[in-house]
Amino acid sequence: MLNRRDELGQRSETVRRANLSVILRELHTRGALSRSELVARTGLTRSAIRGLIGELAASGLVSETRAAPLGTPGRPSPLVSPVPDGATVLALDIEVDSIAAAIVGPWGEIIDEIRVDRPRRHSSVGQVVADLAELADTLQPDDRSLDSRIGIGVAVVGVVRRSDGVVSMAPNLGWVDVGLRDELVRMFGDDVPIYVANEAHLGALAEARRGAAVAADHILYLSGEVGVGGGIIVDGEPFIGAAGYGGEVGHMPVNPAGLACRCGSIGCWETEAGSQSLLRRAGRVATGGRDAIDELLAEAEAGSPIALGALEETGRWIGIGLAGLVNLLDPRLVVFGGLFGRIHPFVARIVEAELDRRALAAPRRLVRIVPSKLGVEASLRGAAELAMEPLLADPARWMRPRDVDARYGVAGHRRVVA
Amino acid sequence: MLNRRDELGQRSETVRRANLSVILRELHTRGALSRSELVARTGLTRSAIRGLIGELAASGLVSETRAAPLGTPGRPSPLVSPVPDGATVLALDIEVDSIAAAIVGPWGEIIDEIRVDRPRRHSSVGQVVADLAELADTLQPDDRSLDSRIGIGVAVVGVVRRSDGVVSMAPNLGWVDVGLRDELVRMFGDDVPIYVANEAHLGALAEARRGAAVAADHILYLSGEVGVGGGIIVDGEPFIGAAGYGGEVGHMPVNPAGLACRCGSIGCWETEAGSQSLLRRAGRVATGGRDAIDELLAEAEAGSPIALGALEETGRWIGIGLAGLVNLLDPRLVVFGGLFGRIHPFVARIVEAELDRRALAAPRRLVRIVPSKLGVEASLRGAAELAMEPLLADPARWMRPRDVDARYGVAGHRRVVA
Repeated sequence: MLNRRDELGQRSETVRRANLSVILRELHTRGALSRSELVARTGLTRSAIRGLIGELAASGLVSETRAAPLGTPGRPSPLVSPVPDGATVLALDIEVDSIAAAIVGPWGEIIDEIRVDRPRRHSSVGQVVADLAELADTLQPDDRSLDSRIGIGVAVVGVVRRSDGVVSMAPNLGWVDVGLRDELVRMFGDDVPIYVANEAHLGALAEARRGAAVAADHILYLSGEVGVGGGIIVDGEPFIGAAGYGGEVGHMPVNPAGLACRCGSIGCWETEAGSQSLLRRAGRVATGGRDAIDELLAEAEAGSPIALGALEETGRWIGIGLAGLVNLLDPRLVVFGGLFGRIHPFVARIVEAELDRRALAAPRRLVRIVPSKLGVEASLRGAAELAMEPLLADPARWMRPRDVDARYGVAGHRRVVA
Repeated sequence: MLNRRDELGQRSETVRRANLSVILRELHTRGALSRSELVARTGLTRSAIRGLIGELAASGLVSETRAAPLGTPGRPSPLVSPVPDGATVLALDIEVDSIAAAIVGPWGEIIDEIRVDRPRRHSSVGQVVADLAELADTLQPDDRSLDSRIGIGVAVVGVVRRSDGVVSMAPNLGWVDVGLRDELVRMFGDDVPIYVANEAHLGALAEARRGAAVAADHILYLSGEVGVGGGIIVDGEPFIGAAGYGGEVGHMPVNPAGLACRCGSIGCWETEAGSQSLLRRAGRVATGGRDAIDELLAEAEAGSPIALGALEETGRWIGIGLAGLVNLLDPRLVVFGGLFGRIHPFVARIVEAELDRRALAAPRRLVRIVPSKLGVEASLRGAAELAMEPLLADPARWMRPRDVDARYGVAGHRRVVA
């Protein structure tokens, strides 16, 4: 908790740091804002905003420009703008079918990005990390990215312990208790901190900040592919459980007499609602992967009864599991990500009908279902948000020394994270 | 958020109020503490503690006594103690088989309490509230309770909208969209605020503060009776969902080909794990109620294979649903309340075995299951905590005027809540 010390100096310092965080977070999520808008959004006084913006500007994190006159009398409020040089992160993404890397700027803007398919088979952590490093090397950093890098964020399709980045289980990769972050540190070094998290947790974060769930406070993001992952936002804050293992919606038992699940249990939601069941219901090889899904969706577009029937049955199972989640979590907004986002137009009606049948009336009335806006990029964008978070939470740690490099503000000190 | 204003006066006031809250909350949950312990627990300096305790004492909320010498040199640290006159609440509880009322003091101590059986049938909200009022009238208030009453907290076995105390659904009472708080206001008046919440949410709060889950941060409390309710604590904070409807674990679909549920869906967890299934499996009338359960448990104690078999099968279903919840919520501690608490000795082994089979390895390793400590009293105690919460969150609102009644501190102003 803040404010436990009563010495006035310490209090002021705590308040100053909290206020710097409030301002930088507003700018991070909303982009350029006038001083007047910052006053309105933060509740800080005009004079406080002026001083704090001055500090952020001196550190190279924001810049101010005179706004164009609005045609109204009085001086226009200066516009506080993103400084693209301010702080960048490297975002990495390990999906079932692809891996990706991106350099992302302080306002979530993608400076360069690359995604390549990977064969859907088990790979050692060493191989995957080596592939990621090769990919990251091809990124075009422009003339700022490396010196301003403050962290590396990594999304992975697996159950992750947040404290040390150990992947407890990633069936699509064949990983059990794999030290992903340690391997990343060996490859990328430890100049900047490396954060690893579950891809659905990060998809939820990205959709909440920059996608389909902006301004919603109680969000359930579903990442439906072979597995079904979940990212939960409660009152605006990511919910990850005690150790980071939470949100594994795919492993709710919905059919105890059902199919064997890759997790070792039987009848988990993802055995009925995941992509393999969809393909099987359409008479295809369950392990057909993304190409088979693309074909199936093309057939459905063309009106194929088999494809549409398979989607209908999958939608029914999505609705059954989702009814339980609506009852349990009382979310306002459910975002369908991954395959669920792609099939949303085909399954929306049946999913809503199952919710009508099975969810409790009260939470059912409140909840809306929307497709993802960020699509396959959601986890990668979320990985960038994760790596940016320490800066947003306490910008002052990046701003301490004033005797700084002229070009990069406090770049020389940015790599140091206590 | 705190601290949005930069005027020093406002800052200091905000910090003072936050610090009063921190101190009162520590005393509320832990009882009497020495000044030294308060320094250690809050991080506030000794001089700050002295000043803030002085304010709380002047308002009649705490008192200080010289602690007995410890046999060590130096002055003993004064002991800050509960003042039982400080603030009391009326707690009410509407369960399936009983209703209860209690006067509860500022440190959670029960001043007087009464619980009476109610027949297991549908009753109008007017009748239930009239019964509660009659019950509350029999409570022995000692010489302090009414003038120091700061709120009324109400637990109910139903889905509750927190904002206005409307019960969306309470199958055991036959209620749909019932304005419980409005009815309570008609009966009890509006001198003090009335707060209504789901009984499992409040059971979780009570077990976390004073029961089996003290010091745990990620808790799932299960209230298993005819229905199965859930109360979730995330990082020390109650999770209730967007409107207060969350935690309805009993209505996760676990068996889509299963029994019709009272909620209108089929195969919900509570149809397999609730008390009616247990009775049915033991060859009894499902609606036999508490007496039938008591008999069944006595038979199980005596070694009856039918009773033990019914408990085993119910335990298996409890384990199946709980595996999904462990995967979804990653809790550290699961507290079995209500009937689940009573049957815990009979079902613990099979529940743990189902978790081993069905839960993901990582969250499974972390989670422990314990029976409730507060038993049938959990919801009532939680209702008291709910009504006490505004005082704990901002004691200053009860402390404003210094020109106060000599006996009751600021009692004359305590009824006013902005």
